[in-house]
Amino acid sequence: MSTYIDQNKDRFLNELFDFLRIPSVSADSKFQPDMIRAAEYIKEKLLAAGLDTAEIVPTAGHPVVYAEKIVDTALPTILVYGHYDVQPADPYELWDSPPFEPTIKKTKIHPEGAIFARGSCDDKGQIYMHVKAIEMMLADGNLPCNVKIMFEGEEEVGSEHLGTFVKENKEKLKADVILISDTSIIANDIPSVETGLRGLTYMEVSVTGPNRDLHSGVYGGAVANPVNVLCQMIASLHDADGKITVKGFYDKVAELTQEERDALEAAPFDLEDYKADLAIAEVTGEKGYTTRERASIRPTLDVNGIWGGYTGEGSKTVLPSKAFAKISMRLVPDQDWEEIAELFDAHFKAIAPPTVKVTVTRHHGGQPYVTPTESAGYKAAMLAMEEAYGKKPVPTRGGGSIPIVALFEKELGLKSILFGFGLDSDALHSPNEHYGLVNFFKGIETIPLFYKHYAALMK
Amino acid sequence: MSTYIDQNKDRFLNELFDFLRIPSVSADSKFQPDMIRAAEYIKEKLLAAGLDTAEIVPTAGHPVVYAEKIVDTALPTILVYGHYDVQPADPYELWDSPPFEPTIKKTKIHPEGAIFARGSCDDKGQIYMHVKAIEMMLADGNLPCNVKIMFEGEEEVGSEHLGTFVKENKEKLKADVILISDTSIIANDIPSVETGLRGLTYMEVSVTGPNRDLHSGVYGGAVANPVNVLCQMIASLHDADGKITVKGFYDKVAELTQEERDALEAAPFDLEDYKADLAIAEVTGEKGYTTRERASIRPTLDVNGIWGGYTGEGSKTVLPSKAFAKISMRLVPDQDWEEIAELFDAHFKAIAPPTVKVTVTRHHGGQPYVTPTESAGYKAAMLAMEEAYGKKPVPTRGGGSIPIVALFEKELGLKSILFGFGLDSDALHSPNEHYGLVNFFKGIETIPLFYKHYAALMK
Repeated sequence: MSTYIDQNKDRFLNELFDFLRIPSVSADSKFQPDMIRAAEYIKEKLLAAGLDTAEIVPTAGHPVVYAEKIVDTALPTILVYGHYDVQPADPYELWDSPPFEPTIKKTKIHPEGAIFARGSCDDKGQIYMHVKAIEMMLADGNLPCNVKIMFEGEEEVGSEHLGTFVKENKEKLKADVILISDTSIIANDIPSVETGLRGLTYMEVSVTGPNRDLHSGVYGGAVANPVNVLCQMIASLHDADGKITVKGFYDKVAELTQEERDALEAAPFDLEDYKADLAIAEVTGEKGYTTRERASIRPTLDVNGIWGGYTGEGSKTVLPSKAFAKISMRLVPDQDWEEIAELFDAHFKAIAPPTVKVTVTRHHGGQPYVTPTESAGYKAAMLAMEEAYGKKPVPTRGGGSIPIVALFEKELGLKSILFGFGLDSDALHSPNEHYGLVNFFKGIETIPLFYKHYAALMK
Repeated sequence: MSTYIDQNKDRFLNELFDFLRIPSVSADSKFQPDMIRAAEYIKEKLLAAGLDTAEIVPTAGHPVVYAEKIVDTALPTILVYGHYDVQPADPYELWDSPPFEPTIKKTKIHPEGAIFARGSCDDKGQIYMHVKAIEMMLADGNLPCNVKIMFEGEEEVGSEHLGTFVKENKEKLKADVILISDTSIIANDIPSVETGLRGLTYMEVSVTGPNRDLHSGVYGGAVANPVNVLCQMIASLHDADGKITVKGFYDKVAELTQEERDALEAAPFDLEDYKADLAIAEVTGEKGYTTRERASIRPTLDVNGIWGGYTGEGSKTVLPSKAFAKISMRLVPDQDWEEIAELFDAHFKAIAPPTVKVTVTRHHGGQPYVTPTESAGYKAAMLAMEEAYGKKPVPTRGGGSIPIVALFEKELGLKSILFGFGLDSDALHSPNEHYGLVNFFKGIETIPLFYKHYAALMK
């Protein structure tokens, strides 16, 4: 670890912990004041790190924190994107330590300790690496690129207002590449750079049978039960080979070449460890694809939530009036998230039997994305990782989505480099989310190497 | 209406309203004090009506209210069974008037007004008819049978402790027939007597996939989603003909003869009215049976409640760890409710894929039941209805369950006569449950006719 990091690591951690203590949950309006506090905190820390300007820019939703350090207009400019909002921590009772009271615990995967807190990996721990890396480069008198910081507060709820911010600030946001740390490496001794992200289409459906809850003795068997019907409709969304049956769903999926597939499969992966970590006996998915392919280069459909009827203590013999589900699909190039939403809407309504009425509503979504591997940004990322880890990083395709990445390309003409340092086992979006101390400090160490290599490649 | 009823109808209604105001919800322990109040109230009213003794008999659960009026041991004895507990009123927000503040409103089906309150029809309004009928017969100096009253407080939660009470009090409960008002007539101008009840088996299942909620981007497509799996398992419980696929489910179902089916189908029924009342475009059910047959003489399977994953506001991209459902089956003779529970348990576990773990637990249940139509009790019921309504009543088979009826036969050797005055449209177990004023007073008028005819037939 560099001397500067070593000398300042306790302060870095304390600052990060204070950041993590602010419950900046974007999905739930009761945390609105904490969203403001988190934005103000990171803005202060950006100024303290040495950026020339840092401001909180209001939007129709949560504000964007924007900061700049322009060294020399002749140098390349890196636009760092991240988010200061976090996922809800529910269910709280499944956390071993409070989600907003950061605690360091040692684990098998993180023998040197990991920071357990909501947002430690997704995304506050990772954006804070950038703030400290910039501080370090400035302290060393060695910032080889201009840097612009854009931290938003709505990534976990679909970045609804970031698009407007971007469109209204194209001049301000002019840069050469976007750098994002919101993804993972394969393992702490196996560095990797993600070359792609899946897209997302998130839908909500309701099924209504009779106009009121009914006595299941008086009416059961004679009237369609909307819960049973919803189950049948959901079950029909996959066929026996694990393929999604929504009409037209796969039309625009770009298949990878066998060579591309082989390259991705060459990365280390232990199926037994994977299953053991999740405590499952078997994996399953689309026929003809491996576990990793199913989680990265193939589109999916998952029910994220389902409810209907009586769900309390004991029993109630009701034939419910309504049933509901939240259903989302991960997409791959070249599927279009809005087109998929329309295809799902049409299909779901078409498969509804005449005994019920269905509604389909759309939540947020985003396009899939692939980084071009010939670009200076991608090469700089690979060189930085190799220098920091002492081995060539593996290119991987990520399963998650960062919907705004496609918008950045469309509005700013910029490619995004996915330069994350988390691990898939860090329990993002789950209870007991954590981020390795090793990962946090490694990121602070590696980010300046990206700046160095990028500046060199852009000469 | 008889003079006595006419002179006392306001008092009768006020007393019933006070009874309905007590929220005697057996399923929810927070209403425990109200259960006691309701038992004490009905006990007081039984004594006031003229029964010789009335006592509150404790059980391991809610108490039984037991009362007697022995006129002459040479006369036949009628044992009146009913329940003073009610269904939970949730969801409260769907009631147009408060569930425990009885309100009279006129409706299309009840142009003279109906009493809107939880328990007005199921079962307090109906048991109170018996209390007032006995009062009237005693005031007239004309009670032609002995009467024993057994009102329990656990019918809505499976009558768990009534069996013990019955077994411990066989001598005390000696009688010639059991009379129960907890069912319905076809319409206010079409009297009917139910000749059978369905049984009930109520199960709860859980499906567990990964050992924690997962990020649906990182893991979606590669790991079985327990919500999707539960939907598939539930969907598979019916085939394309609407038949239940649980192995062995139909083995003991006694088919009715065509003659019996024709007799039941002869009763008036308007499918268009039925659908319009529920605001559904189509009915559906087991192929080869009519709507009424599906709701009475055929067994069923319904999901009463389902939940799993994120069900709050907005979206959460989670691949849930667990999914749950409450599933119940209505049974017909000669299915055995405990055997069906075992068959369901075995079947559900057998169809679970290796990617998940399932649990199956049993809630309450009860046997199906048929009254023999050659009995004095049944004949007395038919004659009483004919005399009160001026037309022959139609024999019907009920869809609902009163689990204790089979236990009465087994332990006391007594048949039960299903002599109810409600309507299927009274929204039992639903918001806005109600009971027609006409029905309430007609019952008070008709019950003494049962006593008269029964005493005559038993001479």
